[in-house]
Amino acid sequence: MNQELIERLFEHVKLSLDFSYCPYSKFAVGACVLCEDGKTFVYGANVENASYGAGVCAERVAITKAVSMGRKRFMALGVMSDKGRVTPCGICRQVIREFSKDIDIFLFNPDGTFQTKSIAELLPDSFGPEDLE
Amino acid sequence: MNQELIERLFEHVKLSLDFSYCPYSKFAVGACVLCEDGKTFVYGANVENASYGAGVCAERVAITKAVSMGRKRFMALGVMSDKGRVTPCGICRQVIREFSKDIDIFLFNPDGTFQTKSIAELLPDSFGPEDLE
Amino acid sequence: MNQELIERLFEHVKLSLDFSYCPYSKFAVGACVLCEDGKTFVYGANVENASYGAGVCAERVAITKAVSMGRKRFMALGVMSDKGRVTPCGICRQVIREFSKDIDIFLFNPDGTFQTKSIAELLPDSFGPEDLE
Amino acid sequence: MNQELIERLFEHVKLSLDFSYCPYSKFAVGACVLCEDGKTFVYGANVENASYGAGVCAERVAITKAVSMGRKRFMALGVMSDKGRVTPCGICRQVIREFSKDIDIFLFNPDGTFQTKSIAELLPDSFGPEDLE
Ligand SMILES: [Zn+2]
Ligand SMILES: [Zn+2]
Ligand SMILES: [Zn+2]
Ligand SMILES: [Zn+2]
Repeated sequence: MNQELIERLFEHVKLSLDFSYCPYSKFAVGACVLCEDGKTFVYGANVENASYGAGVCAERVAITKAVSMGRKRFMALGVMSDKGRVTPCGICRQVIREFSKDIDIFLFNPDGTFQTKSIAELLPDSFGPEDLE
Repeated sequence: MNQELIERLFEHVKLSLDFSYCPYSKFAVGACVLCEDGKTFVYGANVENASYGAGVCAERVAITKAVSMGRKRFMALGVMSDKGRVTPCGICRQVIREFSKDIDIFLFNPDGTFQTKSIAELLPDSFGPEDLE
Repeated sequence: MNQELIERLFEHVKLSLDFSYCPYSKFAVGACVLCEDGKTFVYGANVENASYGAGVCAERVAITKAVSMGRKRFMALGVMSDKGRVTPCGICRQVIREFSKDIDIFLFNPDGTFQTKSIAELLPDSFGPEDLE
Repeated sequence: MNQELIERLFEHVKLSLDFSYCPYSKFAVGACVLCEDGKTFVYGANVENASYGAGVCAERVAITKAVSMGRKRFMALGVMSDKGRVTPCGICRQVIREFSKDIDIFLFNPDGTFQTKSIAELLPDSFGPEDLE
């Protein structure tokens, strides 16, 4: 992925932090997916709930939002918390993996530097759609 | 809510069905929230997962999407499945209630007729943010 | 349900509070189901997670534990938090309703007094197994 | 872990399959944790729900059950489906990791042979309790 796309991904992730609803954890997370067209960015923030289990993480908000816009294939997903670098939780890895086995995950730092991991690295030997066929 | 708004809500719910990702249940659900400005419609569809528990219902996709756009107060939520009338599950009622104690839920039939329920009717004596204060 | 059974239900709910794992909310909840044989009590406590959405409430721990012991029909479910009376969240109402449409929910106070609600009262016009047939 | 413990773990996993409630996926999964005392086995099965997202996997039933019995440290977790070998989904990896960073996961085949993975292998670079401190 070229530098310009990565910078735009980072900008989306940063701005999505403003939309976090996290009165319980006070831990804001922003995420953004880049669709496989290499042009469409869809971002999300964590949306918590008084019943903690009903909350939805930023990554899943971004992905389900993209799916509800007709996108099901993604090139990259970026994520960051307002406290700094963060990796997706297991639930989000499971949701990412449903749609893409080769997506790159960008773990951003507040200064825009990052580390990349493939979903195969973050959820190896995964349980997925094939297991139910 | 006036007739025109209700009709537009129904149109959004209907079109959102096309975006359902439901390979496991084959039960497509579409939902749409109308924000408290009385103008902004945000729709969603159910996004399932091979690990069933990681799936997100249409209502929650619509609401978390709206929150990630800076909306936290809603007038109405409409919902319908491709099989006909459907009511929100308990998880979705919990998420709706986090943001609005007086939102109207429109349970649409395929012909556009509907029944309305308040969230207080669908989740009476609810557990909510106040319980954690 | 006779007084003795209710007292025993309350005792189980109270003791289950000790097993709560709630480092994030600091809100301990205990629950207990009484199986339809009128003899078997199965209790649970809330088990939270750093990824809030992966946590499981006390009521669901009690019910899934009972199911994993071969029980699928219940007479009553009692619940209480260490802060006092609490009602089940929407997720738990959905799980209760899967197994019983006429179960009584006992909302206990710390002194053993209580209020009862049926699941039909707590999750009216519910989405359930019949909707998928 | 010695051969006898592994065999007993397998026997528990096998018998837990009988308690699966999986009318939607028809995919029964059984799991069992061995607590750190090396003696206490706690098993669970998947408990599905008409609202798919409200279902709980076998691994999480076993772990939350163990926690509600006062156990929070585990040596091993075994899992198998009625169709054969299966790996834990991302949600369950997240729940396992909350309690143990060095637990061994036994992925059993129906004949009792198995492969082991550490949770660090299955959920590398994980999000966990430390991230919220
Ligand atoms: Zn997550
Ligand atoms: Zn729902
Ligand atoms: Zn609950
Ligand atoms: Zn699982």
